Amino acid sequence: MVMDLNADLGEGFGIWRLGDDLALLDIVTSANVACGFHAGDPVTIRRTCAAAVDRGVSIGAQVSYRDLAHFGRREVLLEPEELCAEVLYQLAAVDGIARAMGGRVSYVKPHGALYNRVCHDEEQAAALIDAVADYDPSLPVLTLPVSVVHAIAAAAGVPTVTEAFADRAYTSAGTLVPRREPDAVIHDERTVTERAVRMAVNGLVTSVEGTAVTVAARSICVHGDTPGAVRLARAVRDGLLEAGVVLQPFA
Amino acid sequence: MVMDLNADLGEGFGIWRLGDDLALLDIVTSANVACGFHAGDPVTIRRTCAAAVDRGVSIGAQVSYRDLAHFGRREVLLEPEELCAEVLYQLAAVDGIARAMGGRVSYVKPHGALYNRVCHDEEQAAALIDAVADYDPSLPVLTLPVSVVHAIAAAAGVPTVTEAFADRAYTSAGTLVPRREPDAVIHDERTVTERAVRMAVNGLVTSVEGTAVTVAARSICVHGDTPGAVRLARAVRDGLLEAGVVLQPFA
Amino acid sequence: MVMDLNADLGEGFGIWRLGDDLALLDIVTSANVACGFHAGDPVTIRRTCAAAVDRGVSIGAQVSYRDLAHFGRREVLLEPEELCAEVLYQLAAVDGIARAMGGRVSYVKPHGALYNRVCHDEEQAAALIDAVADYDPSLPVLTLPVSVVHAIAAAAGVPTVTEAFADRAYTSAGTLVPRREPDAVIHDERTVTERAVRMAVNGLVTSVEGTAVTVAARSICVHGDTPGAVRLARAVRDGLLEAGVVLQPFA
Amino acid sequence: MVMDLNADLGEGFGIWRLGDDLALLDIVTSANVACGFHAGDPVTIRRTCAAAVDRGVSIGAQVSYRDLAHFGRREVLLEPEELCAEVLYQLAAVDGIARAMGGRVSYVKPHGALYNRVCHDEEQAAALIDAVADYDPSLPVLTLPVSVVHAIAAAAGVPTVTEAFADRAYTSAGTLVPRREPDAVIHDERTVTERAVRMAVNGLVTSVEGTAVTVAARSICVHGDTPGAVRLARAVRDGLLEAGVVLQPFA
Repeated sequence: MVMDLNADLGEGFGIWRLGDDLALLDIVTSANVACGFHAGDPVTIRRTCAAAVDRGVSIGAQVSYRDLAHFGRREVLLEPEELCAEVLYQLAAVDGIARAMGGRVSYVKPHGALYNRVCHDEEQAAALIDAVADYDPSLPVLTLPVSVVHAIAAAAGVPTVTEAFADRAYTSAGTLVPRREPDAVIHDERTVTERAVRMAVNGLVTSVEGTAVTVAARSICVHGDTPGAVRLARAVRDGLLEAGVVLQPFA
Repeated sequence: MVMDLNADLGEGFGIWRLGDDLALLDIVTSANVACGFHAGDPVTIRRTCAAAVDRGVSIGAQVSYRDLAHFGRREVLLEPEELCAEVLYQLAAVDGIARAMGGRVSYVKPHGALYNRVCHDEEQAAALIDAVADYDPSLPVLTLPVSVVHAIAAAAGVPTVTEAFADRAYTSAGTLVPRREPDAVIHDERTVTERAVRMAVNGLVTSVEGTAVTVAARSICVHGDTPGAVRLARAVRDGLLEAGVVLQPFA
Repeated sequence: MVMDLNADLGEGFGIWRLGDDLALLDIVTSANVACGFHAGDPVTIRRTCAAAVDRGVSIGAQVSYRDLAHFGRREVLLEPEELCAEVLYQLAAVDGIARAMGGRVSYVKPHGALYNRVCHDEEQAAALIDAVADYDPSLPVLTLPVSVVHAIAAAAGVPTVTEAFADRAYTSAGTLVPRREPDAVIHDERTVTERAVRMAVNGLVTSVEGTAVTVAARSICVHGDTPGAVRLARAVRDGLLEAGVVLQPFA
Repeated sequence: MVMDLNADLGEGFGIWRLGDDLALLDIVTSANVACGFHAGDPVTIRRTCAAAVDRGVSIGAQVSYRDLAHFGRREVLLEPEELCAEVLYQLAAVDGIARAMGGRVSYVKPHGALYNRVCHDEEQAAALIDAVADYDPSLPVLTLPVSVVHAIAAAAGVPTVTEAFADRAYTSAGTLVPRREPDAVIHDERTVTERAVRMAVNGLVTSVEGTAVTVAARSICVHGDTPGAVRLARAVRDGLLEAGVVLQPFA
């Protein structure tokens, strides 16, 4: 019973802040550090990496489309060569800063629209994996259970890690209920914590149809951009520890 | 009698090109690759690094103020922490891409307004050197003969390399005649070539006052953003080889 | 027999240039001025507007997705409110600069991926038209013959103008042969000129199937980003004038 | 006894927010709207202008150096033609959006490093004023009492308006005590309110030396980027109204 908790960190830019990075770094075991394309100026990246190294939190490169104006939340239909080079640039930048701070990038997590896109777009998934394979094929890529990334990465010798969302509703097919539907997001602290524990202990989650669905996740994603979110993340952490789950980075 | 020839490369952005990168890569021994802040999108960086690796040309990170709109040619009065982090980000990004292409960054050359600023601004020079020292203190920094960078780098254990300009007029104090003055730039191919050879063979250049000035440069900078510039660069290369100078990267 | 010739202008950014703006301004009657989102820094916009005003060339706002890195050539799946506000911002910026130079923006032409997207995406077309209607509903929007923009603009009281391409092959349905197909682009100067004349005089073009297709265009788009392109544009202009066509802005 | 209250608004970018715009719009009579170069994406500009128009708040263009990464707080040593064109672009963009929302830009206020720079740099002040004069010479420019902008604007026929800061300490020469000095900023609500009232009623402020200094301001600047700042701004407003001061935009 080992689980990782990951969260997005360093998602400010210049004067602007998003979320409470230091609070989250005391909760999670893996930090998805924004790389400068959807968020994350160099000062913020440097401070975030230094704080993660201090706490023994694993650092991931949270790569994105180049789109500060929309926070990487809009799909950009890049050519594969462009996407590959842009991922490589971001990954290298954050890894180099992490190394200068005494750590290193241990995994890759695509952000926002890119995260969703690569789950079903084989060409963009291949461009992402090409970048990781070119840089360091031992770096795992974090993705959803149902995602073409798994097969494309496997073919390139790049490991993948599956993550789950304790505060999101699942269909009986094991996919996330889209955010635009009612009840897509679960807010009740006790319920979310119980779902996290069941995921970690039994590898199961109850779907909206009421069935038990297998969720073979090695990491659970938590959020931290509101005070309530930090409290919820801490509750999930405490619940997992009380249930005897060992919190440990996957990378 | 060993000399390096360096030039700025990869200074396009997206659709826009500047200079003939491939022609220059057959002339120089060191390529100052733009890192994305004044020029250099990731696709261009990747292609430029790959082409440099193919030809055995040494790769440098040409770090700059973040200013695509003015090509890094305007001074930006950054706080030291900002400048340090921004240099670190650029250096890491290009080094990571170079490594993915089978090479690596072997030196650092500041670009444009930053290049000039750090020669006399101790605070900004220290921020630049802090970034290099944090990343890899064995990387030499290319600068002018008269520059506070030498002392600040030495104190941090970072090596420096002095470069000269065969097509620029020098004062008897060993400094460049400012561009705004007439005759600051020498265009005659034969004259430029002769000056390059004298720099490499005797370590001397004739100043505008007619005196012989010591120029202890290990590298000569050539330009390539016009067809005439490429021809001039090739003439300098040929002249040096004919004079028995060994062309070899300093790093 | 009245026709407009339009071309993209001011598509440099900072130090980078694209095409010969001054040569084109002596050929066309309408200048699609880049607004800063895919190209066009403020200095370039100001100079281009001033030069267009000097020559009596009509100024259009060439609005785009915000994407300097890919020159506005990649689709960005924006929310309608975002696209509307971004178009409004660009349109206002260039119109204000044009007015300061003694002219004004007389029409709107979407650029690149946005140009293609709005021809078939009703939501994005509506967002574009909302911006124009909010700013000045008397400004015509330049689009293809087969485009949902016509109906959506008409419903909002915004005029549209249809443009044709003398150097592009057409299907018998009146649509452009996609660029990825062979023979999509016609390079022969005499052929291109003859097609332009036939479009202007008869409102017809010969399709790849050999049929005569109606092309009810009020403007023909020419290009200027290569020396050959400028020569071709001048040939089209001269051919139209020789055939007795009156060259006149549509706006 | 008429006074204007101005504040910076719309200083978010994309997902990031700064300050409570709607709370401030119920306090101030003039809104300095960020134009996109230091902050202010088009959606934010459009919403801010619409909200200002709804409340009868005067809209100013808060023009800046192009520097999202450092929030326009670092000096950028632009060429005059560049600064002039960049100010013109921003001014035009926000004015056009304001007009589309039923209002218009009524004045110009430089932001951050540009605000400070133009007070003593005649070349940059002239470039700023050139842009305003080119766009609409009737638009007043907000600046400090001691500033070269007054004379340069007057020579160009552009009006200026002087603003004061109720929460900043003044020297007996009428200049602001630099922020880096202790006691440069006054935090006590009652003191700040009393100073604002004295500025409005008597045109005086007590300097750090204890002398009464003339402050012939037509506008007082308040801040809103923290909850405490909004409360302080409201206290200043209430204090002025209680003292019989009429709050009214200067433009």
